[in-house]
Amino acid sequence: MRTAIYLIIGFVISLGALAYAFYLYRKVLSFDQGDDKIKEISSYIKEGAAAFLRSEYKVIYTFIVITTILIFFGFYFGYDTLSGLTSNSNTNIIVEQTEYSALFYGLGTSLSFLLGSIFSLSAGFIGMKSATNANSRTTTAARDSGIVKALDVAFKGGSVMGMGVVGFGLLGLFIVVSLSLAIGVDAYEAITYAAGYSLGASSIALFGRVGGGIYTKAADVAADLVGKIENSIPEDDPRNPAVIADNVGDNVGDVAGMGSDLLESYVSSIIGAATMAALIFTADHRMNGILFVLAIAFSGVLASIVGTMFVRGKEGKSPFKSLKNGTYASAGLFIALSLLINFLFLDTFGSALYYDQNDVFMNIRNFAFGLAPFVSIIIGLAVGVLIGLVSEYYTSADYKHVKNIAKQSQTGHATNIIAGMATGMESSLIPVLILAAGIIGSFLVGGLFGVGLAAVGMLSTAGITISVDAYGPIADNAGGIAEMSGQDKSVRAITDKLDSVGNTTAAIEKGFAIGSAAMTAIALFSAFIRKAGLSAIDVAQPRVMAGLIIGAMLAFFFSSLVIKSVGKAANKMIDEVRRQYKEMPGILEYTEKPDYAQCVTIATNAALKEMMLPALLAIITPLAIGFIFGSEVLGGMLAGTLVTGIMLAIFMANAGGAWDNAKKLIETGEFGGKGSEAHKAAVTGDTVGDPFKDTAGPSIDILIKLMTTISLVFAAAFGLGLF
Amino acid sequence: MRTAIYLIIGFVISLGALAYAFYLYRKVLSFDQGDDKIKEISSYIKEGAAAFLRSEYKVIYTFIVITTILIFFGFYFGYDTLSGLTSNSNTNIIVEQTEYSALFYGLGTSLSFLLGSIFSLSAGFIGMKSATNANSRTTTAARDSGIVKALDVAFKGGSVMGMGVVGFGLLGLFIVVSLSLAIGVDAYEAITYAAGYSLGASSIALFGRVGGGIYTKAADVAADLVGKIENSIPEDDPRNPAVIADNVGDNVGDVAGMGSDLLESYVSSIIGAATMAALIFTADHRMNGILFVLAIAFSGVLASIVGTMFVRGKEGKSPFKSLKNGTYASAGLFIALSLLINFLFLDTFGSALYYDQNDVFMNIRNFAFGLAPFVSIIIGLAVGVLIGLVSEYYTSADYKHVKNIAKQSQTGHATNIIAGMATGMESSLIPVLILAAGIIGSFLVGGLFGVGLAAVGMLSTAGITISVDAYGPIADNAGGIAEMSGQDKSVRAITDKLDSVGNTTAAIEKGFAIGSAAMTAIALFSAFIRKAGLSAIDVAQPRVMAGLIIGAMLAFFFSSLVIKSVGKAANKMIDEVRRQYKEMPGILEYTEKPDYAQCVTIATNAALKEMMLPALLAIITPLAIGFIFGSEVLGGMLAGTLVTGIMLAIFMANAGGAWDNAKKLIETGEFGGKGSEAHKAAVTGDTVGDPFKDTAGPSIDILIKLMTTISLVFAAAFGLGLF
Repeated sequence: MRTAIYLIIGFVISLGALAYAFYLYRKVLSFDQGDDKIKEISSYIKEGAAAFLRSEYKVIYTFIVITTILIFFGFYFGYDTLSGLTSNSNTNIIVEQTEYSALFYGLGTSLSFLLGSIFSLSAGFIGMKSATNANSRTTTAARDSGIVKALDVAFKGGSVMGMGVVGFGLLGLFIVVSLSLAIGVDAYEAITYAAGYSLGASSIALFGRVGGGIYTKAADVAADLVGKIENSIPEDDPRNPAVIADNVGDNVGDVAGMGSDLLESYVSSIIGAATMAALIFTADHRMNGILFVLAIAFSGVLASIVGTMFVRGKEGKSPFKSLKNGTYASAGLFIALSLLINFLFLDTFGSALYYDQNDVFMNIRNFAFGLAPFVSIIIGLAVGVLIGLVSEYYTSADYKHVKNIAKQSQTGHATNIIAGMATGMESSLIPVLILAAGIIGSFLVGGLFGVGLAAVGMLSTAGITISVDAYGPIADNAGGIAEMSGQDKSVRAITDKLDSVGNTTAAIEKGFAIGSAAMTAIALFSAFIRKAGLSAIDVAQPRVMAGLIIGAMLAFFFSSLVIKSVGKAANKMIDEVRRQYKEMPGILEYTEKPDYAQCVTIATNAALKEMMLPALLAIITPLAIGFIFGSEVLGGMLAGTLVTGIMLAIFMANAGGAWDNAKKLIETGEFGGKGSEAHKAAVTGDTVGDPFKDTAGPSIDILIKLMTTISLVFAAAFGLGLF
Repeated sequence: MRTAIYLIIGFVISLGALAYAFYLYRKVLSFDQGDDKIKEISSYIKEGAAAFLRSEYKVIYTFIVITTILIFFGFYFGYDTLSGLTSNSNTNIIVEQTEYSALFYGLGTSLSFLLGSIFSLSAGFIGMKSATNANSRTTTAARDSGIVKALDVAFKGGSVMGMGVVGFGLLGLFIVVSLSLAIGVDAYEAITYAAGYSLGASSIALFGRVGGGIYTKAADVAADLVGKIENSIPEDDPRNPAVIADNVGDNVGDVAGMGSDLLESYVSSIIGAATMAALIFTADHRMNGILFVLAIAFSGVLASIVGTMFVRGKEGKSPFKSLKNGTYASAGLFIALSLLINFLFLDTFGSALYYDQNDVFMNIRNFAFGLAPFVSIIIGLAVGVLIGLVSEYYTSADYKHVKNIAKQSQTGHATNIIAGMATGMESSLIPVLILAAGIIGSFLVGGLFGVGLAAVGMLSTAGITISVDAYGPIADNAGGIAEMSGQDKSVRAITDKLDSVGNTTAAIEKGFAIGSAAMTAIALFSAFIRKAGLSAIDVAQPRVMAGLIIGAMLAFFFSSLVIKSVGKAANKMIDEVRRQYKEMPGILEYTEKPDYAQCVTIATNAALKEMMLPALLAIITPLAIGFIFGSEVLGGMLAGTLVTGIMLAIFMANAGGAWDNAKKLIETGEFGGKGSEAHKAAVTGDTVGDPFKDTAGPSIDILIKLMTTISLVFAAAFGLGLF
């Protein structure tokens, strides 16, 4: 009964989020699109983005179909091995799965995977659709009604993505869990299928982040190098053949890629905590534990929906404050709701024999209080917020680090680079201490389940977080459209103001994305260990230590692949832009129109080609290591990629952000201003930082989660390996 | 009886190495020093280097005295806790230490520490003394007798260091072990004291590498920036006030720093394996296990001595080949000797109940063959050689990566940096796979003892390796002296040829230093775990995972500190050089002589000041984490620093080396040649790479080893921690 009520409420709320997204989308479309010039430019971006997604989705469809079939047959034929191994394992699950046929097992996992892929694609698609419609309308609003209206349009455009991500993410989970229960599967099995759902979302996120990241930076570099530097035309000038591709890039990378990334974190964190619940609660309380996690998730969605309504611009009020109001409102409501839900589940936590083989005493003691889950959730929420703030500290021109990089630019390119690198490396200190405190704290309070809940807490208000993030590229695009359509300077001033807020929120988001990826991966990692039937991942064993080192290396090697990919794709773009200037000399005199579409096509093809190798590396390595060396060595490898990956992600995101803002600081006239030698050095730093912060860094977040999710799905199959 | 024989042979051989070093030193002094001009310049370098060491040693003496006292009282008063904890641990040592008084325990460890510090200082001191005498004599030999004689002088100068390091390193170990046995301590206790010896060597190595590394790069950057770039005077020009400091830097960083680094690796690897032997052999075979490790070590010293005699230049033969001959001869002889020694110890390995609680079966099976130790040693030797070769591949202009960086320099500073970074990151792939294969291989063959022996095998021929390395900066200095003393171009041509070989050997050495640090740290890590009485370091425990993440962060944070220190020290130097040019305008017209000494003083003070924070971080963190969170969390932290540190060290060493050689490749006329835009971009890369490859990278090697050694020494004291 309780199960039914919660599942129904969950369904209603996730459908509600989608309905709200649809309402917002209609609302965005109802705003005035602007004059013909704006419409024309906007249509180029819209078509370019749609063209990229079409091509990308074609590649992804092939991948999905093949993988779905492979998963089906893998689980179907591996069924005996899987169930045999699981029943021998030292988890406290007495393998009910032997009651079900191999067919069920294969179908359940592969169909969940399929659903996860499709929902992730859908969320990315509607987010981008909304963003490419909102951009021109933001320009028009800025022109006709001023900043308050422009903020409203841009934020509504972003909220479609935010609501779409949490709506689709949660709906899919409820479908998988409900269907599983409907066909008579028990709670543990249902969560196993849900891991397949998470794997689908992870795979799409990887392609989206890597492909989108390569696209956006290749276009950016080419537009800057050939347009701004070689031909001295300003940013976003319509005479730049790569300018449309550059604006498309913002949408495919920062909107669609970011959305599928956070959808993945969101879903994975829920599944990580739910798997923990399934593994550590005894059979009669298992379903309640899972329901609790789901209830926390949907209260976060509800809080996010309400939060978006608190974002209201006001003349003379900073847009940043308006956005923050929404975030605070969501957080406040979420805290109240989760406390309430904790009380509703007091019977489960208070009286249940809460099982954790390693620290039974601590759990009993803590759960006697009954509110440990709530406390763990709040710890996670706090960790997310704090890590985001530290990112802002290291990457904002208001603080000393960015100022120092700008100052060091005066002595040349090398000192700019060294200062940026040192800042990026240093910036790992505080976030890691916060993260470690969060892990230890949530563990002390709630055991492994507490760690899982902390990840859920951190991501609970993902709806509003994503809305604020997706607002950024819309404002950025709006500025580009204002420039290209030759609007008055006052229009550009408004969009610039909106855009600069977007840069700050982007820096915070990156810190948050890394923190949530780390926390989620740790929760998934714990779930993997239990499911693989391991009692420990002992790095004192030389084989496991070898795995740890290989895992650490993968983070570096993967980064090098992604960075090189950006370079290769950019080179193709550069050649094309140079060719156009050479063959169509009239472009610079406005007598000929550049072939935007050709640039878009080249960026699309290059990005899709280059994303394959890193993506396959991330997918194949855990399977290979798991089957060859067994699950403990694989666990070592995951831990290695996790810890080194977090450092690299923080380093790259913050170094890149700091270089970017140091350049912008100089452009405001400090340290010599635009055109000075210091500015040239700062441009070098910014260019180096671009693939760091927008391609490699975010891709590592997914690498960490995807590798862990794959391992979790196949956990029971690895066994001891061949060596 | 056997013990006595082996100890005596060991004494004789280590004293022999020192006598041989003394003979070589006298030989170097017997060569003609050259004309007055050469003598004058050489004396500046000699005095500058001596002045730095004097100041550095003053700081270090204070540190040693304080630490020795702290260690004494720590062990004296902590004695009850220590022995209590150890007797509760699950190692198979039945704590014989309770028979000895607390006084013994404190004295043994603190005096060993003192001896380790003093011997490390001595090795660095004689190495630098020899190098600063050999440099001018190499110049003179190049002028008077040609390349064959010059190579001979430079290599003999370097061999003093090589022989000094292994001689002092081994002698000290024999003293500690013999004295311990003489006072009636058992084998296990003796090795415990030896860990104190290793800690002394580690601490000095850290100061040497960090201090020397900051010195050399600060001087280098200042000399380049103000001299070469701002005032357009050539490299090594006597009108550059920083030129002497720059040449001094080669000696204090690349000779003294490198020597104490490898002495530390050398000693630690032996102690790691010996501790393993003490922990896993049963009491009646324990001493034999330790003796075997020592015998392998002294056979390596013997092989190195013989090897140096095979280095003979020949007209028309590449100096690189001559140096390689020596290395090959040493390796060949060492393999033969270690096989022989293995046969001599067959009784121990064949019949002893070889104890390893985790994999008894495997050990029995393997040790039935009796030659498993030999095979493990050879695996280690092979891993060292292979990792060195991969470093050469990634950093030599003969291969595609450096060529690509040079090519990317044509499109600007940013693409040069990105290409170098990507290359550095990519270059971790193969070394890590080799290392992982070596760890797994030696473990499969010989258990944990096998892993320890692999580290010993890798470092066994350290004598010849260090000789070859120390040759590099001597040849480099000889070139500088030739330039400054106005020798004929033909002299400079010879020294350049010798120097370019030095660059290749330096790249190989860096790879080797990282590989050996990693292998040694893993051996020490295993010893730490056993000694701390842990059965596992389970990263599946959230507390341990938090430790792992913090450890990974330390590697990044430490690097940022060191890189920033170089920047700060360089800025002070830059100010001084600019001041001299301003206040003494005659310098550039040769009418005034620059104040070399002032530059040397400033570099010295800046380096010493800046080395304190990173050094203290490395020393205090493991103690703090160990006492607060206990040994398992500390173990997680060590593993985190180990794996992330290895990656960062490889990345920094290879990116730096590749940038350096890309610049040199362009200077040969490729891609636009000297003075082109590509060259400017390549200079940027080289400058960024300098603190990477010569300061931060090598310092991380020591960070890894020192943190593990400290943890090993205090292993028994940490217990479960406060949280």
